[in-house]
Amino acid sequence: MSIEFHVEGRAGSARAGRLLTSHGEIDTPVFMPVGTVATVKGVPQDVLEELGVQILLSNTYHLYLRPGVETVRQMGGLHGFMAWPRAILTDSGGFQVFSLNELRKVSEEGVTFRSHLDGSPHFFSPESAMQAQIGLGADIIMAFDECTEYPADRARAKASMELTLRWAERSKKFFEEHKSAVPWNRSQSSVLSSQQTKNPRFARNDKLPVDSTQSLFGIVQGGMDLALRKESAERTIEIGFHGYAIGGLSVGEPRERTREVIEATLEHLPTDKPRYVMGVGTPEEIAEYASLGVDMMDCVLPTRAARHGLLFTSEGKVSIKQARYAQDAGPLDPNCGCRVCQRYSRAYLRHLYASNEVLAQVLNTLHNLSFYLDTMRRVRHSISLGEESGFSPSFRSRPEP
Amino acid sequence: MSIEFHVEGRAGSARAGRLLTSHGEIDTPVFMPVGTVATVKGVPQDVLEELGVQILLSNTYHLYLRPGVETVRQMGGLHGFMAWPRAILTDSGGFQVFSLNELRKVSEEGVTFRSHLDGSPHFFSPESAMQAQIGLGADIIMAFDECTEYPADRARAKASMELTLRWAERSKKFFEEHKSAVPWNRSQSSVLSSQQTKNPRFARNDKLPVDSTQSLFGIVQGGMDLALRKESAERTIEIGFHGYAIGGLSVGEPRERTREVIEATLEHLPTDKPRYVMGVGTPEEIAEYASLGVDMMDCVLPTRAARHGLLFTSEGKVSIKQARYAQDAGPLDPNCGCRVCQRYSRAYLRHLYASNEVLAQVLNTLHNLSFYLDTMRRVRHSISLGEESGFSPSFRSRPEP
Repeated sequence: MSIEFHVEGRAGSARAGRLLTSHGEIDTPVFMPVGTVATVKGVPQDVLEELGVQILLSNTYHLYLRPGVETVRQMGGLHGFMAWPRAILTDSGGFQVFSLNELRKVSEEGVTFRSHLDGSPHFFSPESAMQAQIGLGADIIMAFDECTEYPADRARAKASMELTLRWAERSKKFFEEHKSAVPWNRSQSSVLSSQQTKNPRFARNDKLPVDSTQSLFGIVQGGMDLALRKESAERTIEIGFHGYAIGGLSVGEPRERTREVIEATLEHLPTDKPRYVMGVGTPEEIAEYASLGVDMMDCVLPTRAARHGLLFTSEGKVSIKQARYAQDAGPLDPNCGCRVCQRYSRAYLRHLYASNEVLAQVLNTLHNLSFYLDTMRRVRHSISLGEESGFSPSFRSRPEP
Repeated sequence: MSIEFHVEGRAGSARAGRLLTSHGEIDTPVFMPVGTVATVKGVPQDVLEELGVQILLSNTYHLYLRPGVETVRQMGGLHGFMAWPRAILTDSGGFQVFSLNELRKVSEEGVTFRSHLDGSPHFFSPESAMQAQIGLGADIIMAFDECTEYPADRARAKASMELTLRWAERSKKFFEEHKSAVPWNRSQSSVLSSQQTKNPRFARNDKLPVDSTQSLFGIVQGGMDLALRKESAERTIEIGFHGYAIGGLSVGEPRERTREVIEATLEHLPTDKPRYVMGVGTPEEIAEYASLGVDMMDCVLPTRAARHGLLFTSEGKVSIKQARYAQDAGPLDPNCGCRVCQRYSRAYLRHLYASNEVLAQVLNTLHNLSFYLDTMRRVRHSISLGEESGFSPSFRSRPEP
């Protein structure tokens, strides 16, 4: 048993579903907050639980470098290491290798790259990326792919897509041969020390079926070429995965192109498997993509914007650093029920940001995540009611001053 | 009505009491966490409430510079501004002017200093420091004093003490004439805008007596000279305050000297008024000073040490950055019930610190505050039982490696 996916409601192309994992259920469409190095920057895990986060994304590349896969594996995988009992997805490391490494060298075998931390040389192959992700033990892991750069001509996009397809085969082969090595697989001889198993935080979940394993998703590439996207989708499906992601977006292309590629690619993906668009987007965009039939999305935007004082509200974006909020006694978002909006004033949030206080990041992140999760809750509700419209977040468009 | 203080239990020189303020009750002896610019760095107010914090200390000097007294006053004072319904104490600004300003110029009238933020020139007098503290609206405010440097010869210590006494008189006079201007005094014409009064977060507390005001504490100085301390105490009492602080400690003197000055000065302070030692100390020290009869203490140590990865535990100090904790699956402190020790491993806390993650500061601060508050709870419990011993925090002395 790995994951199960049930579509429970439809509205046009959109669907509301339920994804069952070894670490809990996920209502889809779902937005996955990003916890790069096993932490959503500034937010304790109990607060994430209270916000209703059902699945987190964590980055294999970063965790591989620090603290290292073996450390995480010995703590029972990411769930034990970061004390997060709910579902986790890890990316394959491919995107970070491409985006953080100007000196990377791609060969048929894999990618040589240098650590952004200390410049040390490293190598990722489909096999080593799978091994890392099995050791990290997320519920959903991703095939190792090449994220095609933008712009890329057709020949380049096709060559890159072919490489991703060969890597997808190798990823699947390695995964099938080694999937029982996941730290929380109960048929495995224990990887936990006696000290750990005595500690309830690290005990394996005895409710899990004995043969419980991770799920592997394939990634569709093909640049901005719709014919290549179709071919990539069909051949990735042929290899066979538990779910399908659309990669290679948010790499600099116009947003209209992003939408077009998503819409065109979705047509070629199976309806009975989860569909995941990687690395998107604004609240408007995630609502829109959900309306197209996307089930899963992740993005650093809500957390990163929060650290820069950019807050998403039902009345539009608020740049909390602005002097106009210095004596604004009102809540950040009068229509938001999060604990930030229920307690603090804009003046206080502005003061924290202007004073470079850590609490600014904590509270801003909490609100932005709450706003994203609320947006997805509204979207799911609309779909459940069969409403094709009504997906947009409760925005009034208000021009930025 | 300002504050009431009731001693409810004694053990030797120590006393357990209850301090009633306009914003809640405080069990004494109490440790007051420091929230310099109206935030305990990294910890949301609801978490402070859950930790059982009954009173916070905030710094007049910092708030005066940013966001400015007028902004805080217009938000209903610090309680409204930072959305903290429990008690607050502000210092007079004197200590920061002395410790953060090498170019300060002291005259009979007051102190000229430069902002550490932008170098702009400012002036604090007993009157302006009182005016600032009335505008900030803490429950307990402090007379403006000169913190005598260490070392200081007898003549210098005496001259400084005399200045502090003259400033104490001026502080009291200004306070008595202006105390009804506190933002939450209901006999005042409203300083809140209609927008604010419509917002329940900023409504004044209608349960407060109409004439509810702040309390002013005097500060005993006199350097390390016990005779001067006695004279300072007696003459400060003569002026008459709601409570008495021992200032001018933790300025570089040996810790044994600190204890000696505290013990000697306490003898000359009234037993029916709260006694506050400013700016101390380690968990062992706050337990010890409580045993001498101190009722209130504050210190940046638990919060500042947390930011440097130095954690106080029942097994001694832990420097969480050390590589020895990289794969330590155990809790930070097996005898601690805080939400950090109940959920996370040392390995995870070490990873957060090593990765320079903001959550490291958040969780480390939460634990250290919890440890300090637990220490004071144990001290109060021992005093209530009449136990003269048993004040020490549950430390096993363990040498630092």
